Formats: sequence, structure tokens, C-alpha cells
Amino acid sequence: MIPALGIAAFDAAGPLGPWRFERRTPGPRDVQIQILFCGICHSDLHTVRGEWGGITYPQVPGHEIVGRVVAVGPDVRKWRVGELVGVGCMVDSCRTCEPCQAGLEQYCTEGNTGTYGGVEKETGRPTQGGYSTTIVVTEDFVLRVPENLDPAAVAPLLCAGITTWSPLRHWKIGPGKRVGVVGIGGLGHMAVKLAAALGAEVTVLTSSASKVADARRLGAHDVIVAGDAAAMRAHRNTLDLIIDTVSAPHDIEAEMRLLRLDGTLCLVGVSPEAHPMPAAFTFIGKRRALAGSLIGGIAETQEMLDFCGAHGITADIERIAAADVNQAYERMLRSDVKYRFVIDLATLEAPAA
Amino acid sequence: MIPALGIAAFDAAGPLGPWRFERRTPGPRDVQIQILFCGICHSDLHTVRGEWGGITYPQVPGHEIVGRVVAVGPDVRKWRVGELVGVGCMVDSCRTCEPCQAGLEQYCTEGNTGTYGGVEKETGRPTQGGYSTTIVVTEDFVLRVPENLDPAAVAPLLCAGITTWSPLRHWKIGPGKRVGVVGIGGLGHMAVKLAAALGAEVTVLTSSASKVADARRLGAHDVIVAGDAAAMRAHRNTLDLIIDTVSAPHDIEAEMRLLRLDGTLCLVGVSPEAHPMPAAFTFIGKRRALAGSLIGGIAETQEMLDFCGAHGITADIERIAAADVNQAYERMLRSDVKYRFVIDLATLEAPAA
Repeated sequence: MIPALGIAAFDAAGPLGPWRFERRTPGPRDVQIQILFCGICHSDLHTVRGEWGGITYPQVPGHEIVGRVVAVGPDVRKWRVGELVGVGCMVDSCRTCEPCQAGLEQYCTEGNTGTYGGVEKETGRPTQGGYSTTIVVTEDFVLRVPENLDPAAVAPLLCAGITTWSPLRHWKIGPGKRVGVVGIGGLGHMAVKLAAALGAEVTVLTSSASKVADARRLGAHDVIVAGDAAAMRAHRNTLDLIIDTVSAPHDIEAEMRLLRLDGTLCLVGVSPEAHPMPAAFTFIGKRRALAGSLIGGIAETQEMLDFCGAHGITADIERIAAADVNQAYERMLRSDVKYRFVIDLATLEAPAA
Repeated sequence: MIPALGIAAFDAAGPLGPWRFERRTPGPRDVQIQILFCGICHSDLHTVRGEWGGITYPQVPGHEIVGRVVAVGPDVRKWRVGELVGVGCMVDSCRTCEPCQAGLEQYCTEGNTGTYGGVEKETGRPTQGGYSTTIVVTEDFVLRVPENLDPAAVAPLLCAGITTWSPLRHWKIGPGKRVGVVGIGGLGHMAVKLAAALGAEVTVLTSSASKVADARRLGAHDVIVAGDAAAMRAHRNTLDLIIDTVSAPHDIEAEMRLLRLDGTLCLVGVSPEAHPMPAAFTFIGKRRALAGSLIGGIAETQEMLDFCGAHGITADIERIAAADVNQAYERMLRSDVKYRFVIDLATLEAPAA
């Protein structure tokens, strides 16, 4: 076993704190990674607080991982010691079902193995995430990180990046397409950057007038502030795809009316309560669709990272020390972050003995 | 002008009755049709009762029309006197917008011209529908009816047929695909016949145990009666497309769970109140979509009629006399019809002078 140090939740209510635990001894096809940076995703907070179902404590969250390979098993063919790599939301899947065979491991019919909060196939123990010094991952779920990008700002690409990239690619966004992005946070700011880099015309919908300038800086061609009825009318029937990143119930009917014929509104935020339902004719009258999309597959994540390397795209981040995770959670709940906290794992100190 | 006799609604509440009116004199590219049969669609009832917005009275409903060409304008190239033809839900559209150019006239950005309840471009008067002895239609919105089919039983294909055919084709249904059909009525029974004829495996969801045998006779391979939790579980994650024909609010989340990865639930029934909204994760977890579809384009309607001719498919109908329309409406409200009433226009007698 390999000693590891993590930032763990010890129960649903209390603060996170340092915790000593063990990673599995690398098997023949495993890669051991020294973690440099890990992004803080909203789902980390929901999960450790037990809002998304039963987890076991202590629990180390984190699935936006960037690090360096420090050891490889004897049968590893894809990775060498010293390479800069990433790990996202999954560390394994069944690999044999139809979705897995199609490179859609996130939709594995057996359920993919979550980077944290899942069950490690090799040991039967709970998986522990990236707020930690080291991780051991089977080579097929390790990703190559472009060396030309700031590795701290790459970390959020592993969840926020791929979660917005996957629907942009699935719904064939490129030049000549019009994309709406609802909500400018961790996911939304990546959706804007990626859609714009893909050549689409991007319209941001935000509830905050204070984010208009920022949305344009990120690449938006147009910004609609919530409540601007004239702007909503002007954009009616214009968008091919809307990526809705807001995880609280809201008026998606108003958004759907912005879709043109055959347009799709894709939910990527998991609202704990259902949104109000649009009228049937809002769907029928223009063959519009309301859909959802879950992170992305491994090949698609690599494609996204390579694209970001080629286009110089990273997340806008605020780098924090390990000791500041609890404060970051509080600020994240107030949407007080532009646009992702990333933990510098070099700052993680061992707990008092 | 051409004298016509119709069955009209004179106000939102009262019964329909015979009404003398006039059709426009055929222009150079118009076709005059003697109507033989007209199906009764649920939307006829909703429209004449004013439930779908303001209409003018008297109003002749009906958009499932089969008849014979009795005259053609001098520039008509597609039709000859004596041909068996059909007219569906539209009699015109702008013909120049992107959807019209793509053969999707039903989604015309200017709005298509409804066969009844619309505004006749040539005259500015309200369009009057197919519960009548004759109609004049521009040749591009006339359809060829296969001579080998019972023309009375063809009539419902012009709305119920195309409304279910269009989503089956749009979502690429064929051999190897699994289709669910919710509700066995005018639309649903056509969805089952068409999906089965396209080679799909068809599962019917019905609230009525009494329709199980009938669903199988229509071509269903499997039938789930509402409330059968074990059957719902057994079919989970199996369907590629669900065509939901039910126009009352109901639990579409339970239906969506039957969809496999990338499956679509397509609404074709216009529920006056919105359905309850499924949880966000029901969409996200399998990239499922909730969509809608509106009738079908002209080329697609011809394709459907030709397919029905080749496969010997018609609607299951109850043929009625013109005098029985009000009674048919009452029975339709009680779902007491298998599965479509069709008016024999030869029975239409002139009102007392």
C-alpha cells in the first residue's frame, strides 16, 4: 500500500480536514500519480454533505486532477514516469458494455467507477478523490495534459471542461451554429470559451448584470440579463443549442423559446428539484428537445484537452491552499468565485500526530 | 365562387350543423376536389370549441380529407381530373423560408396555413375544412392517395398517420430499433402500425387493460398496462424512441426511464396543462431527450401515403353519416371509438331552406 495524505470530510456536517489514508499498491497496468492540483467542483460539496445519497466517511472529494506520473506498473504501455497527466470524474467502468465500447464510459450500463464515492474494483474499498497527494489509476482512465498550459488552470477542464465539451460535440457545434449558455460559473464559463473556440456564435444568459463584461471577455458575442424581455424576444427562435448550467429550478420554457427548429436545450446542472415543465407546444411547435448530458467519455476528454492545448484554453481559477478548502466551500455557495477554486496540493500538510 | 356545403360549428358551445358557404374560384394552379371522406381529429373538437384560441364562426373543421379531383387550373401540372387525392392539416405555407425549403412546411417560420381556422392567402377569408362537399387547394399541398386502399380508411393518415410517421422517420426508426407508443387512440394505433411496418419492435403503454389484445393485433410485440411496476422495471433502458400520444398531463418521467442511452420521448399530443417535469438526472444520466413533433411536411406525407399503399396500411375506422358528427364528438370525448371516426360526405344533406 502507498501512504497518502488527503483532505477529507469526516461527516456530512463538519468541516473537511487532513486525513492519512492508503492508496492501493499499483498493479501491472496502474499508474501512480503525484497530484499537483485539484479543482473544487460543486458536486464535491453536495456529495460530502450527503445530499446526493449515502457515502462512507472519511471521504476525500475531488475529480479535477492534474499531476505527474511517478510510477507505472510493468504492463503499462501508455505512460512514462514524469509525464503530466489528468484524471477526471471516472477511474474505471465495465469496459465491455455497448456505451463503454463506444467510448461513452460515463454511461456504462454497470455504472462507471466514480473517482471518489465509488467502489474501487481492485480492493472493494471506497474510492478517494483528488484533494490528496497521490492517486493510483488504471492506465486507460489517465489523460494526457498539454505541457503548454498552466497545470493548475487545466484541472477544471477534467470536469467543468468535458461536461460542456461533450454536448457541444454531440450536438455538432461549430462555425455557423448559435449556442446559448445559461449561467456563468465553473461550467458556464468553460462552455462559453469552448463554444466560441469551436467557431459558434455564443449568447450568454445570466441573472447577474455584473457578469456582462466578463461574459464578453470569455468570448460571448451577446449577453442577455435575466428579465430583459425585449432581448428574449429578439433572440427567439435563433439558437441551435443551449447549455444550461444552472442547478436550481428555473424557467426553462423561456429559454426553450430561444431555440430554433430542431434546437436542443441541454441540462448539465443537476437541479435537486425539477424545473417547471414547459408547455407541450413549446416542444411540438418547433420540434425542440430538452435533454441532458453527463460529463464525457475518456477519448472525448482527451480530444478536449488536446483542443485546449492547441487553442490555449484553460479555466479561470483562484488558486488556494489546502487549508482554505472549507472557506472556499462557503464562498462557492455564495457564487463568490471566478470561476473555479483549485487546490495546490503542495500546500497540504500532515495532521498533527 | 363555388358553392359548397359543410358541417359547421356556429359557436363554441352549440352543436355542429349543415352550412352553405363558398369556395374560392380555382386559380391557375388550384385543384378543386370533391370530398369523399373526412376523418374526425381530436383537434377539430378543441378548435371549434374555442379551446385553442380565437376562431371565427361559422367554422367547418376537418383536415383528414380524401377526395377526387374534379377540376384543375390551367397551370396545374401535377394533377388530372379523376385522380384520388388527399389534403392534410395544411393548405399553404410561405414556401421560401428555411423550413419550407427543407420540406418542413409544418414548421414554416411565417406559420403554415391551416386547412381550417387559418387565413386563406388568395382571399383573406378564414379557411374552411374537410367536413364539406368540396375544397379548392393549391396543387403543391395536394397529395396522391394510393388507389389500392379503402379511401375512407386512408383519411386519418392525413393527420394521425403523418403525425406519427414524421417522428418515426426523423428519429430513424427501422429494424433493430425499439419503439414505445403511449396511448392507443387515433394517433397511437397508427404509431403502432407504422412502427411495426418499419421493422421496429413495438411496446405499447396503455392505461386500459381492455386494449392489450387490440394493441397486439395492431402490431405491438409487447404491452404494458399502466401500474404494472414489474413490467416497467423489465423494460427500463430499452427503448430508442417513445411516441407519446396522450394529451392529458401524466407521468412522463416513468416513461423516460424506459429510454436507453440517447433515447427520445416525443410528444405528439398537446396537453392543455404541462406534464409533471422529470428530474434533471433522468435526462442527464442517459443523455435522454424530451421532444415534440408537429404533423409532417408535404413530401414526407406523400412518402407515408406511398408506404401505406405498399404495405396495405390504413386506419381502423368507424364510418359515420354527416348527421352523426355531434354524437361522434361525444363518443370521442369518452374515448369510445376504435380508432377514428370518418365522415362519409355523400351523406351530407343541405339544410332546410
